[in-house]
Amino acid sequence: MKLEPIGIIHSPHQEAVGTPVQSSMAGGVEGTIEIYPQFAQGLKDIEGFERIWLVYWFHRAKPSKLLVVPYLDTVPHGVFATRAPCRPNPIGLSSVRLLKVQGNILHVEGLDVLDGSPLLDIKPYIPSFDGFETTRIGWCKNVKVTSAVADGRFTNNEMTTL
Amino acid sequence: MKLEPIGIIHSPHQEAVGTPVQSSMAGGVEGTIEIYPQFAQGLKDIEGFERIWLVYWFHRAKPSKLLVVPYLDTVPHGVFATRAPCRPNPIGLSSVRLLKVQGNILHVEGLDVLDGSPLLDIKPYIPSFDGFETTRIGWCKNVKVTSAVADGRFTNNEMTTL
Repeated sequence: MKLEPIGIIHSPHQEAVGTPVQSSMAGGVEGTIEIYPQFAQGLKDIEGFERIWLVYWFHRAKPSKLLVVPYLDTVPHGVFATRAPCRPNPIGLSSVRLLKVQGNILHVEGLDVLDGSPLLDIKPYIPSFDGFETTRIGWCKNVKVTSAVADGRFTNNEMTTL
Repeated sequence: MKLEPIGIIHSPHQEAVGTPVQSSMAGGVEGTIEIYPQFAQGLKDIEGFERIWLVYWFHRAKPSKLLVVPYLDTVPHGVFATRAPCRPNPIGLSSVRLLKVQGNILHVEGLDVLDGSPLLDIKPYIPSFDGFETTRIGWCKNVKVTSAVADGRFTNNEMTTL
């Protein structure tokens, strides 16, 4: 099971902990996804989708740990109950809004990924497959993720380490 | 970028094309996720989440193609605009409902994954990160994915090849 990057993610996030996103900018971080030319044909018809999944490699993740204290909490949880990057297989997953396609470049918004992350896959976001209302979100209920994100108290990158 | 399985997915789906799911059973396919003992500690607190993401390897995918004719359509689309398994990096992504945790075994429902698929990662499903209403779903709008799933015309496995 070996992976080959299909592209690279260009984002304004140079460091894992960045400047807090202002309320008006929450979710407004834009960047580009560069697909390597040999894979560009695979983008045919992607422009029809409002959102896409980015599957990428946490290239700057620390070594894997099975118990982690997430940024938004003070007690350890199993890594599989968090979105922390220090996973056995450091694969990241982010849903972003697709703004525009120019050849092999995708312009996206809502980017919570570090600059230079190797891209492994793109999938269309399909609400009937991917969008669910859930009421139980475990330890996250204590940190009010939704409101924290909405009022801009956390940067996108800090969220990634949740 | 090398991957190591953290477990294996046990599901009733032995073949890519299975028996149509009846209306009353749509989304009702149950199975188990076996986490290898050396990774079991990473499951701490996972039981608090209603849904989880399974990130897995399409171990029986055909060789990668950049243009594919999805099961639900008759014309080719770029593979990144589909959920077909024959991807450059054959990584699968499915959201399932977590029913019960027994030690290193997770009981789940809504399993659209072939039996024996190597598991790469588990992430908690967090609606504010993962759940979005979108109106534009590209070529999928023609095949009425939601109603096709709802009325049981397609099996979960066939959906996987979408």
